[in-house]
Amino acid sequence: MQINDAEIVAEVRAAFDGYEIALCANDLAMLRELFWASPLTLRYGPRENLYGADAIHAFRAGRPAIQRPRDLLRVIISTFGRDAATANAEFMMPGDARLGRQSQTWIRTPNGWRIVAAHVSYEEP
Amino acid sequence: MQINDAEIVAEVRAAFDGYEIALCANDLAMLRELFWASPLTLRYGPRENLYGADAIHAFRAGRPAIQRPRDLLRVIISTFGRDAATANAEFMMPGDARLGRQSQTWIRTPNGWRIVAAHVSYEEP
Repeated sequence: MQINDAEIVAEVRAAFDGYEIALCANDLAMLRELFWASPLTLRYGPRENLYGADAIHAFRAGRPAIQRPRDLLRVIISTFGRDAATANAEFMMPGDARLGRQSQTWIRTPNGWRIVAAHVSYEEP
Repeated sequence: MQINDAEIVAEVRAAFDGYEIALCANDLAMLRELFWASPLTLRYGPRENLYGADAIHAFRAGRPAIQRPRDLLRVIISTFGRDAATANAEFMMPGDARLGRQSQTWIRTPNGWRIVAAHVSYEEP
């Protein structure tokens, strides 16, 4: 299994960057597209544990429709073979001193790279 | 790509269960074995961001050598093809009212299934 094949890393980085743009812009359609459309998809957030793509989309749709800019700090994307990857990032939001951490597992589906599991939390002081 | 092939799920479940036993027992050798021996391995914990297997092992070794029993609640293991998997679990520790969440990405290496990325946090109230 090839680790971090440059071509695959570039694919996942593009998907990751697209997700980041969608997240900051609160682009619900794109956020929906990039999460695997499956009841197996899950996302642990700071205050919620969401099981299934529908629950994730309902959570997004239930939030105020505002932009949520943030700055990415350290980003580590690793690929395993041609069809699996992890993307981990530290981030900070304006006016918030906490350090956020975002973990995603990406899988290549017939429709393209999709997030199959995600975990977002803030480092405790 | 086959999702949740029963044979693969059983393999990952066995590795996951072995990790859980090692974690509760503070079996540092087994914890070391089950994390991918790579500088690319990472673990976000509640109060720390650890980059590289060496940093993860140093963190474990620096903690008091006590058992850390906990109860697993909801556990979701999903496999993608034969070589990649996610394991996500909610947990609680005795005397702690907080809900913990543990996310792992497992990859089949030449030495067996290994955790390549992990994220542990507590749900905020």
